[in-house]
Amino acid sequence: MIETDVAILGGMAGISAGISCRRHYPDKKVTLIRKEGTVLIPCGIPYIYGTVGNPENNVIPDGLLESSGLDLIKGEAVDVNRESKIVTLADGETIRYEKLVFATGSGPMIPPIPGVDKKNVFPVRKEFDYLGILLEKVNEARDIVIIGGGFIGMEFADECKKGRDANITIVEMLPHCLQMAMDDEYCDEAQARLQETGVNIMVNERVEALLGDETVTGVKLASGKELKADLVILGIGAVPHTDLAKKTGLELGFRNMIKVDRHMRTLSDPDIFACGDCAEKVSFFDGRPVGVMLASIATAEARIAGANLYSPTHRTVGTISVFSTVINGRAFGVAGLTERIVKQTGMSVVVTTAEAPDTHPGGMPMSAKTKVKLIFAKDTGIILGGSISGGKSVGEMTNVLSACIMHNMTANDMVMFQMGTHPALTASPIMYPIVNAACKAVIPLRGMSNIV
Amino acid sequence: MIETDVAILGGMAGISAGISCRRHYPDKKVTLIRKEGTVLIPCGIPYIYGTVGNPENNVIPDGLLESSGLDLIKGEAVDVNRESKIVTLADGETIRYEKLVFATGSGPMIPPIPGVDKKNVFPVRKEFDYLGILLEKVNEARDIVIIGGGFIGMEFADECKKGRDANITIVEMLPHCLQMAMDDEYCDEAQARLQETGVNIMVNERVEALLGDETVTGVKLASGKELKADLVILGIGAVPHTDLAKKTGLELGFRNMIKVDRHMRTLSDPDIFACGDCAEKVSFFDGRPVGVMLASIATAEARIAGANLYSPTHRTVGTISVFSTVINGRAFGVAGLTERIVKQTGMSVVVTTAEAPDTHPGGMPMSAKTKVKLIFAKDTGIILGGSISGGKSVGEMTNVLSACIMHNMTANDMVMFQMGTHPALTASPIMYPIVNAACKAVIPLRGMSNIV
Repeated sequence: MIETDVAILGGMAGISAGISCRRHYPDKKVTLIRKEGTVLIPCGIPYIYGTVGNPENNVIPDGLLESSGLDLIKGEAVDVNRESKIVTLADGETIRYEKLVFATGSGPMIPPIPGVDKKNVFPVRKEFDYLGILLEKVNEARDIVIIGGGFIGMEFADECKKGRDANITIVEMLPHCLQMAMDDEYCDEAQARLQETGVNIMVNERVEALLGDETVTGVKLASGKELKADLVILGIGAVPHTDLAKKTGLELGFRNMIKVDRHMRTLSDPDIFACGDCAEKVSFFDGRPVGVMLASIATAEARIAGANLYSPTHRTVGTISVFSTVINGRAFGVAGLTERIVKQTGMSVVVTTAEAPDTHPGGMPMSAKTKVKLIFAKDTGIILGGSISGGKSVGEMTNVLSACIMHNMTANDMVMFQMGTHPALTASPIMYPIVNAACKAVIPLRGMSNIV
Repeated sequence: MIETDVAILGGMAGISAGISCRRHYPDKKVTLIRKEGTVLIPCGIPYIYGTVGNPENNVIPDGLLESSGLDLIKGEAVDVNRESKIVTLADGETIRYEKLVFATGSGPMIPPIPGVDKKNVFPVRKEFDYLGILLEKVNEARDIVIIGGGFIGMEFADECKKGRDANITIVEMLPHCLQMAMDDEYCDEAQARLQETGVNIMVNERVEALLGDETVTGVKLASGKELKADLVILGIGAVPHTDLAKKTGLELGFRNMIKVDRHMRTLSDPDIFACGDCAEKVSFFDGRPVGVMLASIATAEARIAGANLYSPTHRTVGTISVFSTVINGRAFGVAGLTERIVKQTGMSVVVTTAEAPDTHPGGMPMSAKTKVKLIFAKDTGIILGGSISGGKSVGEMTNVLSACIMHNMTANDMVMFQMGTHPALTASPIMYPIVNAACKAVIPLRGMSNIV
């Protein structure tokens, strides 16, 4: 029997929760329990197949655990006894805890397509050896079909194409790739950029079956088309790893995620917390459950969970949903709601756009045209969301929007946003597109309550 | 006599004020009056001497005026009659206005050094032809001495060194270059980076005289040292262009800037507004006058002034002071107060730092280590300032801090900041240094009022 104060089940979010706990409660012994010998950087996985080159270069170093004073036990937790507060591992080892954190993450959704279990069909699992095998397959493949045109599918296609002349085709069921995340005009731009690399994109196409005997040889679409394939990658979505939580008697909610309160404490057990992909999230905007899973959300929740284990320190404001991606050198980011979402829910909004080079003058090296769209609530002028495409600065520009959203800034506030500008780093002070888009919103919003 | 609704005197801030005015009052005729045929992008001026290559590539295109519906009169305003509301130009032309905006900017401070009027001594004037002549001089020079190690001096030195093997020396009076803007450790880093290019930096050195007959040949320092120089560039600081404002009877305040209220309206005349370098600024933090002049502040003020001409629309919250620079490929940014400033004023603060690569994994191409320092008020936990060095994303990361400062975020809020992360665009979600620096502040701040 191993004794610990805090036991944490899981990978990346577990590390983050552990660091946060140790920071707040330096006297507590914190033990990470995980199956994987090595924890991968989850959002870096597509880059193993191109830019980064191999799984070894995409791991979270265990040195981070040591420097944060976290103990590590490699093993698979198979049972939790909430009364005796004991976690049992597959090898029979037991660990007694005072506080337990589920940070068990998520795994790829396996769609119920006939043939999905054939050889050379790869859901994207966050497992080191498995992803190494997939790398060999990608290197050998002639015809790669990627099912699902979300972030994972798009990033995999972009990376797999780098330095290889394989035929790569994305099959997406919806009218646009990335449609769950971005508005049409940004989806169009991302698709066009990816097509420039030679990747084929097929939208409005549903996969009916994977063909071949033991090994996949093709993909049959509901439209009747057939695609040749010696490798199929599944990027359909993710499902939370909550089998153990369920077995433990923790209440599950939306999409089988573990139900938690604003302190990230499970509704079922005051000594058990949950965070990351396995934990239920609610929207910053309306408090409803949201299905979005992002490493950045997971770590934010983990910081909150770790800090709250022995005393309520932080209270989550809910999930804003902030992300960015890069497709063939063009960056895309969204913070908060898209126009598609607000229109679906019938919200009354003002939408504005602005464009500018991300340097000034635009003739500086590496300049990229930045396109910004902002969405403001019509009655209050409060920002609900923003979308950006452009160059490398898009990641942090999206974070500027996140800060504005988190503090309910109005268009009026954002007109007066005091950005710093520099020729090589940002748009010009006259053209800075976040501010200019806000400026354009002030007139249509005029007369509304929060606008002076 | 030309009739207009709004007359605006000045360059870049004038354009921004005019655009803002036209946006809010599309029926008003707006006339820009300026001496210069061409308006330069002010912060781009150092880049004329390296990256951008010539003044032609660093202008604000007049197309922006046309597309915004602004009229342009080229001429020097020499008189304003406030009673008859008439501006008189040097050529005798008169313009009758309803509202007048002073956006007359600033020019280089000329220090009272013996010999400062010699040939080949160049204060940095924002004038197109003048800067073209300086470019020829830079191309011919063997020994360039730059007096003043602020942004202008540092950026000029960096750019002048590109593709040239001239000897370049910066002479700075204070113990560090950039000391008015950044804390010591960042100054040290910037100096070291610049020295790597071969630029010489001399600190704690005061210039006593410029040597030579008609043309400068050297610089004599108070320490007794003498430097050879066939070109001297002055980057000492800037003074507001407010001679005409004074002649017009507008009250001047701190450092001869035009006194304005929170609407950017002059204290002296309800129909005259002022914005940009010529207008007095007050600190966001304590409301005291501040001397900082930045193009980004100027345009922010111009947007406010333009919107308020006929109706109070925006109220400035005061100057946060947000800027960034690049020295030999390393970017530096500061938002709000530095540790030097808070210590000078005896404020009780908590200061934390964090570091991380700006990609994840750090092995992604173009990765740069980002260093962040945050300063929080000890009693409230509210952020007072932040400093960053790193790669290209520093510009927008500094703007993330600006948004946090503008909304009085506490360390507690910032711990829960929901940043988006992406391998190629940002630090990893575990390491994101703005959040990690905030995390480190929570414990020392614990027990303080605003921390739950």
